[in-house]
Amino acid sequence: LLSQTRSERTCPSCKVFFSHDPIKIVRAKGQYMYDENGVRYLDCINNVAHVGHSHPMVVKAGAEQMELLNTNSRFLHDNLVQYAQRLQATLPEKLSVCYFVNSGSEANDLALRLAWEYTGHKDVITLDNAYHGHVSSLINISPYKFHQLANAEQSKSVHVALSPDLYRGNYRQDHPDPATAYADDVNNLIQKAHEKGHKVAAFIAESLQSCGGQVIPPAGYFQKVAQHVHRAGGLFIADEVQVGFGRVGTHFWAFQLQGEDFVPDIVTMGKPIGNGHPMSCVVTTREVAEAFKNSGMEYFNTFGGNPVSCAIGLAVLDVIEKEDLQGNALRVGGYLTRLLEQQKEKHPLVGDIRGRGLFVGAELVRDRVKLTPATAEAQDIIYKLKEQHILLSADGPHRNVLKFKPPMCFSEEDADMVVEKIDQILTGTLNAPLSL
Amino acid sequence: LLSQTRSERTCPSCKVFFSHDPIKIVRAKGQYMYDENGVRYLDCINNVAHVGHSHPMVVKAGAEQMELLNTNSRFLHDNLVQYAQRLQATLPEKLSVCYFVNSGSEANDLALRLAWEYTGHKDVITLDNAYHGHVSSLINISPYKFHQLANAEQSKSVHVALSPDLYRGNYRQDHPDPATAYADDVNNLIQKAHEKGHKVAAFIAESLQSCGGQVIPPAGYFQKVAQHVHRAGGLFIADEVQVGFGRVGTHFWAFQLQGEDFVPDIVTMGKPIGNGHPMSCVVTTREVAEAFKNSGMEYFNTFGGNPVSCAIGLAVLDVIEKEDLQGNALRVGGYLTRLLEQQKEKHPLVGDIRGRGLFVGAELVRDRVKLTPATAEAQDIIYKLKEQHILLSADGPHRNVLKFKPPMCFSEEDADMVVEKIDQILTGTLNAPLSL
Repeated sequence: LLSQTRSERTCPSCKVFFSHDPIKIVRAKGQYMYDENGVRYLDCINNVAHVGHSHPMVVKAGAEQMELLNTNSRFLHDNLVQYAQRLQATLPEKLSVCYFVNSGSEANDLALRLAWEYTGHKDVITLDNAYHGHVSSLINISPYKFHQLANAEQSKSVHVALSPDLYRGNYRQDHPDPATAYADDVNNLIQKAHEKGHKVAAFIAESLQSCGGQVIPPAGYFQKVAQHVHRAGGLFIADEVQVGFGRVGTHFWAFQLQGEDFVPDIVTMGKPIGNGHPMSCVVTTREVAEAFKNSGMEYFNTFGGNPVSCAIGLAVLDVIEKEDLQGNALRVGGYLTRLLEQQKEKHPLVGDIRGRGLFVGAELVRDRVKLTPATAEAQDIIYKLKEQHILLSADGPHRNVLKFKPPMCFSEEDADMVVEKIDQILTGTLNAPLSL
Repeated sequence: LLSQTRSERTCPSCKVFFSHDPIKIVRAKGQYMYDENGVRYLDCINNVAHVGHSHPMVVKAGAEQMELLNTNSRFLHDNLVQYAQRLQATLPEKLSVCYFVNSGSEANDLALRLAWEYTGHKDVITLDNAYHGHVSSLINISPYKFHQLANAEQSKSVHVALSPDLYRGNYRQDHPDPATAYADDVNNLIQKAHEKGHKVAAFIAESLQSCGGQVIPPAGYFQKVAQHVHRAGGLFIADEVQVGFGRVGTHFWAFQLQGEDFVPDIVTMGKPIGNGHPMSCVVTTREVAEAFKNSGMEYFNTFGGNPVSCAIGLAVLDVIEKEDLQGNALRVGGYLTRLLEQQKEKHPLVGDIRGRGLFVGAELVRDRVKLTPATAEAQDIIYKLKEQHILLSADGPHRNVLKFKPPMCFSEEDADMVVEKIDQILTGTLNAPLSL
């Protein structure tokens, strides 16, 4: 009944998980979610609940600030400035100006506005299978979305570069220098744009592609792309909405995996930033910020940077530090990856394991040479895991990549549990679903 | 120091109130804000704190739900469905499908996407001086913003209609039928678009123009516009981001001021909806929602419709009802308007008083015939009121309209206080600023 009323009263384009038999979750704590019957689910997918669902320090920070004051940034407030300073301390020095907004979509749209204004150029280069948000400007640069449309008409100012996918892409593990090869593709797009009299404002990419299939670009790729894009007068936008805030384990930001010598011109943040509270951020250089200001157009965001959002953002940073969640991502993510690698040894269906920290993908294929996507099999695993009270999802252009991005308090025991169940499903030895 | 660090570390395009001497607010309650020295300010401007700053019922609802669960709408949850039902109960029956998003900007952008998809058309008609949000698609339809740019290049698919302003516009109080005259202007734009082979997807307008200068369109105007737009195959989008939720006193939605026979195709909501919590909503008809769904593109909004936002939205609706804030807006708004009308009788500078409920504008002019905008005088009043610990702002294309949009718990005593101070400023009898 709830499901039916929902589909009558709210967005019919919005899908629920497990649409054949959706779950009603009523509470959650850490890496666990509980349905209305008290059944506990292990959550392997909610990267938004970054420091764990309903973390008491985050809840307390939000509640206390709500009680005191929640207003817009037209007044001075310590939280705004403190939070900007704390975020900047995690970033290379030249990324020194923060814009606070409400969602990853608002952040990426503002990043485009900054790039357009700074460069005076219009064109944008995006990666194949990319998803950067739901507002209209971002649908235009999200092949993951516009490929869904029958009558998709790609904007003439958007250019789609090859996804730097070493498993299924044009240049693979066996290529002598895939970083250069993929970057050259971007350069070719720039040259083609120039031939048509177009100019490139920005290259935008997730530091690791998420919806695109948990793709890890080869190290050095971003540096080479940035060289090409800068030479064309454009900016490099690193979208950290899915992958930032310590998830990759070795670094706080996923773009840092490319090497110390790489610094984007603009970084966008979102999902995990407020552990579920609607907030996000764009960070850029003084030069870009000044150019945007000098356009003469004021920027105002009603909710962005309000004292409650900033208090929550600060609490999230505190918890990451205090509970060493980046370290946990490194340790448990490594452990999970090793367990999955063993599955790859054991089951031919598991074609590729790739990940950094607690951002891990397992790509399923019917044939390890042809790489035929095992889409139905991935869906089957997801549904069987759900019956075992484990929440996992499949994504990527073929929806055949099992996608791990759990809350950062995920433990080795959790990793053991989910991989054991996957093993049983693949072996065909899984017992009947637990009864409730 | 705080002000300086802020301007170094955060968005230099973001302006603070009273930039010569900004205020640091540390707490707020009801219609009052308090600075770091405990000085109390009467808040005449923060329409976002709709039911009063830090309302305990809203804070409690948010805190309790944060403690339990805050996750995305891919899981079923009662709050989402209950909130959709409660909002729909305030609207005409045909507005039956809700999309929950995070800001007025996200709401208006989604409204455009719905209109584009439903109609298959591209062009948008907007009002002069309109502001609909900060994402790139909305800057395009916001003359209030794009007029700020030196090198503004208006999109060929955006058409700017006359603002239906009966005081300063093309057709005024003395016109026999301004509703028809202003609607005919929209129709002319439609015809001109057709001549160029363009087709109109939507007409968008705030139900009462806010940044545009607190403009109250003549009753019947929307009906006539809707006829023209529907004939052209387009939709009518009513932007209630600033003016909805009972502010106009006689009705819950400002578009209802036009008459019982007017129903927009899409309504967007924002600012007051969550009393400061980042959330917003788009409501439309089943037909429009189905067309959007049938495009084949899924819609997902990470934070939109999460259980915390919905709990807060429900609490705001409860408080409006329980404390009869719509009734209060009617009573106190009427009282404030009468007091301001007396100021108009007394001071030639006060050219026009216009308002509905607690949405009131006082337009200042140096000459009542030429309507020369008294911009500097408006700024002077604002700064002098600030010294008296009253927060008011001036807006409109000439920044000469004093703009009242206080929290809805504003009282007659508050109205007395602000108007008395304005009277003293205009009379020149104001005492020296209160010392702290």
